[in-house]
Amino acid sequence: MNVVDIITKQKNGETLAKEEVACMIEGFTDGSIPDYQMSAFLMAVVLKGMSRENIIYMTEVMRDSGDVMDLSGINGIKVDKHSTGGVGDKTTLIVAPVAAAAGVPIAKMSGRGLGFTGGTVDKLESIPGFRTAMGKEEFIGAVNDIGIAVIGQTGNLVPADKKIYALRDVTGTTESLALITSSIMSKKLAAGSDAIVLDVKCGRGAFMKTLPEAEELARLMTDIGKAAGRNTMAIISDMNQPLGRAAGNAPEVQEAIDVLKGGGPEDVRKLSVTLAGAMIAAGGIADEPEQTDMRKQTARDEGCSQKFAKGMEIAEEMLTGGKALAKFREFVKAQGGDPEITDDYSLMKQPSHRLEIRAEQRGYVEGVDALGIGLAVQHTGAGRERKEDPIDMSAGIVLNKKIGDRVEKGELLFTVYADDEIRLEKGAEEAKAAFRFGENIVAAPDLIKAVIE
Amino acid sequence: MNVVDIITKQKNGETLAKEEVACMIEGFTDGSIPDYQMSAFLMAVVLKGMSRENIIYMTEVMRDSGDVMDLSGINGIKVDKHSTGGVGDKTTLIVAPVAAAAGVPIAKMSGRGLGFTGGTVDKLESIPGFRTAMGKEEFIGAVNDIGIAVIGQTGNLVPADKKIYALRDVTGTTESLALITSSIMSKKLAAGSDAIVLDVKCGRGAFMKTLPEAEELARLMTDIGKAAGRNTMAIISDMNQPLGRAAGNAPEVQEAIDVLKGGGPEDVRKLSVTLAGAMIAAGGIADEPEQTDMRKQTARDEGCSQKFAKGMEIAEEMLTGGKALAKFREFVKAQGGDPEITDDYSLMKQPSHRLEIRAEQRGYVEGVDALGIGLAVQHTGAGRERKEDPIDMSAGIVLNKKIGDRVEKGELLFTVYADDEIRLEKGAEEAKAAFRFGENIVAAPDLIKAVIE
Repeated sequence: MNVVDIITKQKNGETLAKEEVACMIEGFTDGSIPDYQMSAFLMAVVLKGMSRENIIYMTEVMRDSGDVMDLSGINGIKVDKHSTGGVGDKTTLIVAPVAAAAGVPIAKMSGRGLGFTGGTVDKLESIPGFRTAMGKEEFIGAVNDIGIAVIGQTGNLVPADKKIYALRDVTGTTESLALITSSIMSKKLAAGSDAIVLDVKCGRGAFMKTLPEAEELARLMTDIGKAAGRNTMAIISDMNQPLGRAAGNAPEVQEAIDVLKGGGPEDVRKLSVTLAGAMIAAGGIADEPEQTDMRKQTARDEGCSQKFAKGMEIAEEMLTGGKALAKFREFVKAQGGDPEITDDYSLMKQPSHRLEIRAEQRGYVEGVDALGIGLAVQHTGAGRERKEDPIDMSAGIVLNKKIGDRVEKGELLFTVYADDEIRLEKGAEEAKAAFRFGENIVAAPDLIKAVIE
Repeated sequence: MNVVDIITKQKNGETLAKEEVACMIEGFTDGSIPDYQMSAFLMAVVLKGMSRENIIYMTEVMRDSGDVMDLSGINGIKVDKHSTGGVGDKTTLIVAPVAAAAGVPIAKMSGRGLGFTGGTVDKLESIPGFRTAMGKEEFIGAVNDIGIAVIGQTGNLVPADKKIYALRDVTGTTESLALITSSIMSKKLAAGSDAIVLDVKCGRGAFMKTLPEAEELARLMTDIGKAAGRNTMAIISDMNQPLGRAAGNAPEVQEAIDVLKGGGPEDVRKLSVTLAGAMIAAGGIADEPEQTDMRKQTARDEGCSQKFAKGMEIAEEMLTGGKALAKFREFVKAQGGDPEITDDYSLMKQPSHRLEIRAEQRGYVEGVDALGIGLAVQHTGAGRERKEDPIDMSAGIVLNKKIGDRVEKGELLFTVYADDEIRLEKGAEEAKAAFRFGENIVAAPDLIKAVIE
């Protein structure tokens, strides 16, 4: 197959044959297609788009470029969850034990990642002793034992994505629906779960700024999942302001535990119940022959299926009845961490500096720009700019006020945590700039914007 | 300067700053920008286009990437000529001695090139003894002595183009007005002449298929030339059928000599007079205070300036009076070739095989597809597919019939020349397929389609 012909077809916006897609992805992965041909191809994908069938096929070829996890040794319907990324998003730490407590086997691989804070794996490592490295046998054994295990990426999963992602990063070809979805979904498919629940973020702090864009991404990802035989659904949630109050690694773990205890910020709780409800429904736990009229009504009101509504009800029960918290402690202990963390947050690393920022005038919070807060949090030391950067587990920002809140002069807006004063000041200044005030009452944005089943 | 930011700007179709254009071209040429970034940039140029000012600046940066010829040691206004390439185009062999005979100093560098036949340098080398390699001093000396020298590319001219061209060839990024014009014009500017006459081919056998496309290319190239301070004009000429009757290396030299002797095919003669006329006008030879009324009328009829009309008149005189032929002989002798070639074509290599193809029915020639004939000629052995391929000087095709000609059954259509029977058969078959016949009278296409001054 002639590579220049394939690039030219893509350049002309034509749909490629399956073998042509496979030729590009496999050839680039095995090194027979040089990076300069791949980058021209990627730029053509960015500028001309790709047909749905080509995206679906590309995702499957990428999935098959390396190991595909075999989770058949785990009983039950394994459900995975993925977020497209936002500020203060600690829901995995909550929904994984909630769904596991409800009986859904959670065999999850998470990333570290670059960004405002570490990934889920980094956050978990802020718990003393917690291990996220595990062999495959041990991983499967842990899930069969206690119903949940969360580890860092293991094995040679989707090497095609690693190579393509690295090239996109240096060739201005990151912004493409086709390339973003195939990157995410190839990894989810290779991770081996039977069902996938996606949290697609939408707003100023997300890649997708508007609801139509987020819906397009969500539909494409669910289509890819379904085409590969995985039960897939997506929740579109707000990312105009940070999720919850805490952003950072240990600060987010702390807030997640608050929610597992039945407290915590309302938005984190609501999104967690929604996502865990979807996972419980996908896991087949919410199946039951009879439904009460009230439940049917609730399902209709929420615009989602009865099974989903039942799943959310079960998720609520797991939180209020303490079962999710107990599962979390069991999970932390099984992976070498200290379960006492749930009663004593001081067991996590404490920051050496803190700075409280107060309101300079009265008014209403009109905006807390998620992107601005995210960068501020990164600059406190909570996130990496380059792969090799260390992370400060204790650093971050805790918000006291969010959109719609009334603020009196001198009232606490937020607290910054960092290990040195320069980072502290920088984070505080940037976070301050992310706040916007007005004189009139403002409604908080809707958290759950759409459900794509 | 951040390369990814520059690629992203180009991807978004924005006009780049001068320094950003320079950064990409210079960085790629010196190796500090890797090929995978350049190929993404090139694909973005292909798909988003480039502003006129960016193309002009890119061309100038490319020109300055290597040596720029200093022809100030040659007296007079040096005029260069360039053709965008077609089948049977031997005009350089004619217009160079015609213009030189009229007093225009011709200091020309020509290429070998890949394609249907060799380049001008290859064609000249079909004359026994002809040398196209020459040092710079010798080159300038030759022009000062006899008014003309034609050599292969010397020195390190436009290394940026060499690298970019090689990359475009393997990344599906050849078809771009911005990239084509900057490639051609950077080399013309670096070649050092004071004025440039362009022959932009238009039709099925050319890169530009339609007149509007050819005009766009011609305007852009003349603008680039003028922006760089060079008097530049363009002729747009037909390339739906081959130019003249002969295509190949020695066969084209022979046809060129026919024209220099005052004969040869009408179209070759007409285009040569037009191009040489433009060169003579650009060289200041056609300047004169008084113009006759008839000449003014001719100029108006042809839609071109009086100076240009006068130049064409002078070109005609050079052909009919034998001065151009004498200049050609002088030129051949000065570069080591045998001037007796003009009287004895058998001094050039003769093909071992020939095949005459005759009409199978009577009718009119409706089409002689230039592209089809070009490929047929290449397959006789006259052209290179790869740089290292040898060229068969004697191979080629000589047409007996062209568009508009009436054909009787059994009449000669064309003759194929090659060194072996396989090539002979292949060339004949392909050339046959390039002919299209009809029952009605057909007009020959207009040769000169437009003049862009």
